[in-house]
Amino acid sequence: MARNDVRAHSVEHKLGIHASPTCTMLYGDHGGALGFLIGEEHKGMACMFTMMNRARLAVGLQGVAIAERATQQAFAYARERKQGAAAAIIAYSDVKRMLLTMRALTGAARAICYATGVAIDRARRAKTEPARKAAHARASLLTPVAKAFSTDIGIEVASLGVQVHGGMGYIEETGAAQHFRDARVAAIYEGTNGIQAIDLVTRKLPLEGGKTVAAYLDELRRTVSAVKASNAPAFGETAARLGEAVDSLERATQWLLAQKSSDAALAGATPYLRLFGNAAGGCMLAEQALAALREGGDGAARSALARFFAANIAVQANGLERSVTEGAGSITDAQAALAE
Amino acid sequence: MARNDVRAHSVEHKLGIHASPTCTMLYGDHGGALGFLIGEEHKGMACMFTMMNRARLAVGLQGVAIAERATQQAFAYARERKQGAAAAIIAYSDVKRMLLTMRALTGAARAICYATGVAIDRARRAKTEPARKAAHARASLLTPVAKAFSTDIGIEVASLGVQVHGGMGYIEETGAAQHFRDARVAAIYEGTNGIQAIDLVTRKLPLEGGKTVAAYLDELRRTVSAVKASNAPAFGETAARLGEAVDSLERATQWLLAQKSSDAALAGATPYLRLFGNAAGGCMLAEQALAALREGGDGAARSALARFFAANIAVQANGLERSVTEGAGSITDAQAALAE
Repeated sequence: MARNDVRAHSVEHKLGIHASPTCTMLYGDHGGALGFLIGEEHKGMACMFTMMNRARLAVGLQGVAIAERATQQAFAYARERKQGAAAAIIAYSDVKRMLLTMRALTGAARAICYATGVAIDRARRAKTEPARKAAHARASLLTPVAKAFSTDIGIEVASLGVQVHGGMGYIEETGAAQHFRDARVAAIYEGTNGIQAIDLVTRKLPLEGGKTVAAYLDELRRTVSAVKASNAPAFGETAARLGEAVDSLERATQWLLAQKSSDAALAGATPYLRLFGNAAGGCMLAEQALAALREGGDGAARSALARFFAANIAVQANGLERSVTEGAGSITDAQAALAE
Repeated sequence: MARNDVRAHSVEHKLGIHASPTCTMLYGDHGGALGFLIGEEHKGMACMFTMMNRARLAVGLQGVAIAERATQQAFAYARERKQGAAAAIIAYSDVKRMLLTMRALTGAARAICYATGVAIDRARRAKTEPARKAAHARASLLTPVAKAFSTDIGIEVASLGVQVHGGMGYIEETGAAQHFRDARVAAIYEGTNGIQAIDLVTRKLPLEGGKTVAAYLDELRRTVSAVKASNAPAFGETAARLGEAVDSLERATQWLLAQKSSDAALAGATPYLRLFGNAAGGCMLAEQALAALREGGDGAARSALARFFAANIAVQANGLERSVTEGAGSITDAQAALAE
């Protein structure tokens, strides 16, 4: 059989993921390449979307995986590296803030990805049809959040990892910079994170007339109530802060549903997805802490992390809500600032 | 004269700034290197600090410069690149949000750096001693903000620049990724941004018993009042949002001053510096808009940008304030979450 008229041309120089040899492919330069039908005719687009949908969760997990590796490396370095009066830098408050931010964001993203995976499994395996349908709707709702939130925090966590290493982090030999370079692509491929946010706002919020998202908000509220009822001092103001975050998420959701996919809804999509991830991730970390406290596990560590997330990350909710509801107008009216 | 016993060994492979050949220097491997005294004896440390202090504003401007170039490139690409129904991607709301974020953050950082430069000039050239002294205190207050805020946003803006380019941004040929790589070092060198934040909180806030920062807060309040008094519809809710940001900054300032450089103050330093930059930068963009409206210049563009900043960035103030005042405790109590 003769060689098909297709060849790889010019491997691209990319910022990261250098193990993946992205290249331009040339088809038919010498008379024409032969195509082969794989699977059934006219089903290609559907197959592509099946692939793409699964790939979204996989790419979200890529964000989690890079964030986890960057976090482990930063902790190891901060425990070893001495500065000032011979203390390892993990003793310094600002370094603690960076390390806790890394661990909290990574934990939240991991929990969101796992919850998405659970919903996908249940959509196939739950015993009743209504349960399978509800699980399918839940998976549809969470998938864009799993993809975009996890890959956004992947970049942020990798960037903090470089910072914890100081000047050493800027040297490729250390390995911290590679995470920063590798993580960057995950916010772009398999649908940019902007596209994920638009999918969430225009296709997922209206699912079942808004009932899918309403059921999820109820679930988050139950977590907030359980944290409050636990009365565990280690939680600090966690219940109050998570409650405010869920309030912001609910108001932003209602506002977006009322916009009916208008320009304003599209303009508010990205901060809305972040708000969703912050509220959901914060509640999931709190659920983990509650489970650990109940079962006598690592309750102190889990509740401290949930508290850190609530006090430092979930509290962005108020600003993000404004950025959805007022920010959208500031964009649709901003023609003069874009024209320059 | 014989060659001195010093040589460059192994040029480092860095994430970026490849034009700067960072290398390990070896002194005295072959019997001993000869040192030369430059300047007066025992004045080296003072000279180094003079250099470092000037370098801080210069590095801040490096953040602004990379952000500006990334912004220009992203605008050019967004105007040229077609997607979907043959519209250039600048027509899409989510792309507008990214471009406006880039322009607003860059403008705010530039204004903070310029204000710092003006204060340094006045500290030398103002006509009276009290005016020179006040300008010196102002320059001391703003320098860590100019350095850290500008370089933090330099990374964020360069990252958005990659995102606006989509997959093309990940290919080095495009140039967007280089800004992302180059910008990363500026948050590390000439004193990491964590060190800048600690300098701001522990050394600059207590200047003149807190009067330096109080005078600056008064100035920001005057801007808020002027925006309100202008009644310009193009400002939208700018006065209200900036007013809230200055309120948050004032409360966080009082809280930090009361902590007296304790661990809690150190733990809150980084979000405090960001809060400072957001409030100050937002007010400065509003001042620019007021001047343009007064003088019949590009008032529409400037006020739209100030409004965007107020509605999307200044609104982070509430969360940042919490992250200072409640977040600090969540860090000092987080030993269990750091021990794992």
